Amino acid sequence: MSSGPELKQRKADSGAIPVALVGAGRIGAVHLKNILANPRFELRFVVDINMQVAQEWASRSPHAKAVATIEEALQDKELRAVVICSPTANHPDAILKSLRAHVAVMCEKPISFKVKEIDECYEEAKKQNTPLLCAYQRRSDPSCRALKEACASGKVGQLQIVRTISRDHPVPTIAYLKISGKIFHDCGSHDLDVCRWLLGEDPTEVFAVGSAFNPEIGALHDWDTVMITLKYASGAIASVDLARNAVYGYDQRIEVLGSQGMVQANNKQNTTVTLATENGLHTDPFLYSFPQRYSETYALELDHFANVVEGKEPPRLSHADVRAVAIVADAAERSCETGQKVHIKY
Amino acid sequence: MSSGPELKQRKADSGAIPVALVGAGRIGAVHLKNILANPRFELRFVVDINMQVAQEWASRSPHAKAVATIEEALQDKELRAVVICSPTANHPDAILKSLRAHVAVMCEKPISFKVKEIDECYEEAKKQNTPLLCAYQRRSDPSCRALKEACASGKVGQLQIVRTISRDHPVPTIAYLKISGKIFHDCGSHDLDVCRWLLGEDPTEVFAVGSAFNPEIGALHDWDTVMITLKYASGAIASVDLARNAVYGYDQRIEVLGSQGMVQANNKQNTTVTLATENGLHTDPFLYSFPQRYSETYALELDHFANVVEGKEPPRLSHADVRAVAIVADAAERSCETGQKVHIKY
Amino acid sequence: MSSGPELKQRKADSGAIPVALVGAGRIGAVHLKNILANPRFELRFVVDINMQVAQEWASRSPHAKAVATIEEALQDKELRAVVICSPTANHPDAILKSLRAHVAVMCEKPISFKVKEIDECYEEAKKQNTPLLCAYQRRSDPSCRALKEACASGKVGQLQIVRTISRDHPVPTIAYLKISGKIFHDCGSHDLDVCRWLLGEDPTEVFAVGSAFNPEIGALHDWDTVMITLKYASGAIASVDLARNAVYGYDQRIEVLGSQGMVQANNKQNTTVTLATENGLHTDPFLYSFPQRYSETYALELDHFANVVEGKEPPRLSHADVRAVAIVADAAERSCETGQKVHIKY
Amino acid sequence: MSSGPELKQRKADSGAIPVALVGAGRIGAVHLKNILANPRFELRFVVDINMQVAQEWASRSPHAKAVATIEEALQDKELRAVVICSPTANHPDAILKSLRAHVAVMCEKPISFKVKEIDECYEEAKKQNTPLLCAYQRRSDPSCRALKEACASGKVGQLQIVRTISRDHPVPTIAYLKISGKIFHDCGSHDLDVCRWLLGEDPTEVFAVGSAFNPEIGALHDWDTVMITLKYASGAIASVDLARNAVYGYDQRIEVLGSQGMVQANNKQNTTVTLATENGLHTDPFLYSFPQRYSETYALELDHFANVVEGKEPPRLSHADVRAVAIVADAAERSCETGQKVHIKY
Repeated sequence: MSSGPELKQRKADSGAIPVALVGAGRIGAVHLKNILANPRFELRFVVDINMQVAQEWASRSPHAKAVATIEEALQDKELRAVVICSPTANHPDAILKSLRAHVAVMCEKPISFKVKEIDECYEEAKKQNTPLLCAYQRRSDPSCRALKEACASGKVGQLQIVRTISRDHPVPTIAYLKISGKIFHDCGSHDLDVCRWLLGEDPTEVFAVGSAFNPEIGALHDWDTVMITLKYASGAIASVDLARNAVYGYDQRIEVLGSQGMVQANNKQNTTVTLATENGLHTDPFLYSFPQRYSETYALELDHFANVVEGKEPPRLSHADVRAVAIVADAAERSCETGQKVHIKY
Repeated sequence: MSSGPELKQRKADSGAIPVALVGAGRIGAVHLKNILANPRFELRFVVDINMQVAQEWASRSPHAKAVATIEEALQDKELRAVVICSPTANHPDAILKSLRAHVAVMCEKPISFKVKEIDECYEEAKKQNTPLLCAYQRRSDPSCRALKEACASGKVGQLQIVRTISRDHPVPTIAYLKISGKIFHDCGSHDLDVCRWLLGEDPTEVFAVGSAFNPEIGALHDWDTVMITLKYASGAIASVDLARNAVYGYDQRIEVLGSQGMVQANNKQNTTVTLATENGLHTDPFLYSFPQRYSETYALELDHFANVVEGKEPPRLSHADVRAVAIVADAAERSCETGQKVHIKY
Repeated sequence: MSSGPELKQRKADSGAIPVALVGAGRIGAVHLKNILANPRFELRFVVDINMQVAQEWASRSPHAKAVATIEEALQDKELRAVVICSPTANHPDAILKSLRAHVAVMCEKPISFKVKEIDECYEEAKKQNTPLLCAYQRRSDPSCRALKEACASGKVGQLQIVRTISRDHPVPTIAYLKISGKIFHDCGSHDLDVCRWLLGEDPTEVFAVGSAFNPEIGALHDWDTVMITLKYASGAIASVDLARNAVYGYDQRIEVLGSQGMVQANNKQNTTVTLATENGLHTDPFLYSFPQRYSETYALELDHFANVVEGKEPPRLSHADVRAVAIVADAAERSCETGQKVHIKY
Repeated sequence: MSSGPELKQRKADSGAIPVALVGAGRIGAVHLKNILANPRFELRFVVDINMQVAQEWASRSPHAKAVATIEEALQDKELRAVVICSPTANHPDAILKSLRAHVAVMCEKPISFKVKEIDECYEEAKKQNTPLLCAYQRRSDPSCRALKEACASGKVGQLQIVRTISRDHPVPTIAYLKISGKIFHDCGSHDLDVCRWLLGEDPTEVFAVGSAFNPEIGALHDWDTVMITLKYASGAIASVDLARNAVYGYDQRIEVLGSQGMVQANNKQNTTVTLATENGLHTDPFLYSFPQRYSETYALELDHFANVVEGKEPPRLSHADVRAVAIVADAAERSCETGQKVHIKY
């Protein structure tokens, strides 16, 4: 991207990037805060059909206004970027319209549950020479990046085993779970992306088992407890465990065993306090959930997006990354349903 | 404060607190970012004789303008709060003017190196019935507050030993050290405040020894390595160690031994990554310095100030707190100079 | 066992248990030291065809002598116990002879690689009413036992995921690997035993993948890197990863996720020293290998054996435990060879 | 010592060192176990006026017998070593008699509370060319030794601050406290020895404060909570805190700040288990007391003594070490009593 032809983008006078925020929901609130705190962006639009919330959010920035549709925002010829936080079903439409207006896109994961739609979006980005960043936030997380760097620099030698753990907290609402795309896509896709990022290859085979301890989750034909095994041509093996109910806090860990060592990214706690009594030592639970765990990460991700918009860096996730993750998540889900190992075709 | 007579303060229409930021230096930048990110505040003025920086900062908020003097800001009859980050020598003047205009004050520590000036400021605050918050940030730090809570709730029983460690990183510039008020006031005052906060009593005696391993610091008749011992009427003992050069990162720890247990607040690291090789396990250094360590804390401190301005909470530090800290820091410095234990008079 | 009929065993006058140690190799040396240090045992025989070593070992105890065969030791009508540390191929013969002489047996794992031989030994134990303890040492390890206790007491609620990691250090010699029974039996059996112990049920299905990064290990049709997934009727899932080359030290961990919490048993380091420099924090590698990691554990295991001999406790592993572990290890190996999930028949 | 004239010692035929254990009390039991487990020693005598215990202990070794007095043991012309664990008041007599019989001595700390007696013992050792090892066990502790090594090798640069914490658990009996020599000698001497060992110099000044929260301890004119500050000619500063009642387990830590880094030796826990629930993370208390914390250390100390007896190593503590520790402990106690800083004369 950075070495490609000139980005067809328009500059605001101030130098700050005029940006629209699409979707005034939970993750939208996270990005709003970071846009306001980052001087490289100038918030122009908050887009949501709930105009009351959109107006409230817009009132916090001198140049922002609320609009109900992305089309209205794209009328502004100075607009250079959108951050899309609407429900997944709306992603492709919003992405394609933005790209066709030569507005750079950061879109919450996933671009789509369908590989075909993912391809369509990235082909449009290529055609319009306008960047599309899929926001798998771990790619911007300092701990994940330091672990990646340890792997890439050879500090642990040849990579042999990758283990990731993603255990959600608290249990999402059933309303959310119904539109979540099920656990392999909703949670597992982050881990599958991490495996690809670290190993630099795609698995040839996948085997997954799952259970639904929570009957409400079982009733959705979804799982709350999953174990995925991935086999790679290099001999590497990956194991991903997913759960919906880590009562002790948000639990996301990565561990890589290599021929020369091992590296882990572990969890965070709210305070550094240790209480020692005759019962033992006690410290805080892990952070509550993703907005707490990735608080700093989301700000860094947005800053990465500023670099992408300004042509200083390519997006941290490529079309191939996003595509492969969707394919492997599908294959893992199929393995879990059928009880058989699945050979993956890309 | 919250139960006292109505605060004589003026409300902006939006409900956000119109605030002036005084001093566009390093700690000012920290508060600027937090003011912009906190919807409870509306930045009205950036005050600095360096008008270029002041204008740049002001341009980030829809309602803000740059002015060279605090008097100009205080002309605005809607102004309800100031955050004072100018050099210590200017604090009393800025505080007194603000209080007399019935504008609530948050002032970086210390109010003044002189007890007389501290008293003058707090007496004015009382007279004007307008709050004055001295910003010892550890009072707002989640780890320090959790430790305080563990002590206050009786989880560790009767408090017997308090140990604090404050080891600076990196070594401040000599230019700064010349105006720092020396290590007992500049660094030690935070720790002395913590001791008072935790123990709820004032030491009767202090003994301090100090060294200057760095000859440039010795040439200023200052110290870079200090050990302070405090004795309390209850039998409690406190020990504070200060150093200017913790090459391994910013090192601030608190530990309390009680009859029923022990509680510690420890340091933070940038990532949660552990690298294991045949040489052992390796993790990050401690965070670089105070802006990193207290990043979240400063935002919480500002939010506390919003509560203070709105009459919802009294300031976390009282006149008595600030006064006692200055007196004990003076006594500790005198002990270090004379080599003798000092009985402290309040 | 403790509630069964009187043990047909003979008492020495001193009250200490007359014991024979069979096999003067590496693990034999560990047990020798513990027998000498435990006043509940009186060493009577060291049995090894290498009479020189046997004599050297025997000379350390007042009542011990060296013999070349177990038959010679079993002549002693006061002998009450044997600790069998000879190669696996010799286990059944030594076990059967001892049991028939009504001498209690502690035998290093595994009893045999063959289920039939395991059954034969345990049936003889039952027939002779003489205890047979298979020495899976984790059953006696304080950390493993504390983890088990946390699971058994309901502290983590319903068990949902068990993850174990067993990564060997250093890589065993090829000579050893040739007679090791391959990685699933040699290493994995410990983990499979842990899973059964914790979950209290047997897996219905197993899927395993393996690689041999080390070509010498590959040439033996063995693997050095393995991932096993086990599915249980309750919905629980277990995952076991095995590796032969953890250069950072002996790495054995267990983790259990339950509906109400999570519990882990982690690794040990030689010292408690942390070194902090500008490069970060540094601690020791994990302990070198099993004699270091389980140093205290082997002593506790021997003490458990004393209780077994005296009828105070039943053996910590039952016939059913040892049998199931062998069956599941076989099934896992078959899955790894065939690339297919295996339904396990007991 | 190792480079001095030939040690006038006698060899047993087996090569093992014939040794007498003097004092069948609590610490004696620790050394008994280690003597029995260490093939470099052959236990010949257990010396105690309580002949019943002495006989029971002696019965555990093939060559040992019980005697009531050290004189009886010293009759044995093959005896080469004694381990003295009797009450402190008896140390000098037992030491002098042993040395005069050219029997090497390991004596529990302290040699004596009186500097004059310490000197007498060491002068006799020199005169008889027979080694005398004072058993400050931390000199043999792997964590303490690794910390010392980090300091000695320059890894932390110039040493600037040493902090040690020694908090006892459980509170000793009043009967013991009466003969303990008070907290500065009984507990503090270990820490003062560590300071000397690490810094390689003697403090010029000491200031100590103490409290007795426990009235029974106060009634003995002793203290249960103490803070000692030591000043050194190099500019280094040491701080030692002592307490009798760490309800959360035996708490002994050492920390050294240097110009290039920091190094700590921390506490140990019984298991490596972490329990995570919605209330947070929970681990074991620190080890119960010194026999647990220094279990391995005492075995290593005894092995060091074997080296000393065989002339392979000099004793880890010199006359100068033991002498200086007694002098500084006296000075610290005097400072605590008088409330004044004390200049130390050696």
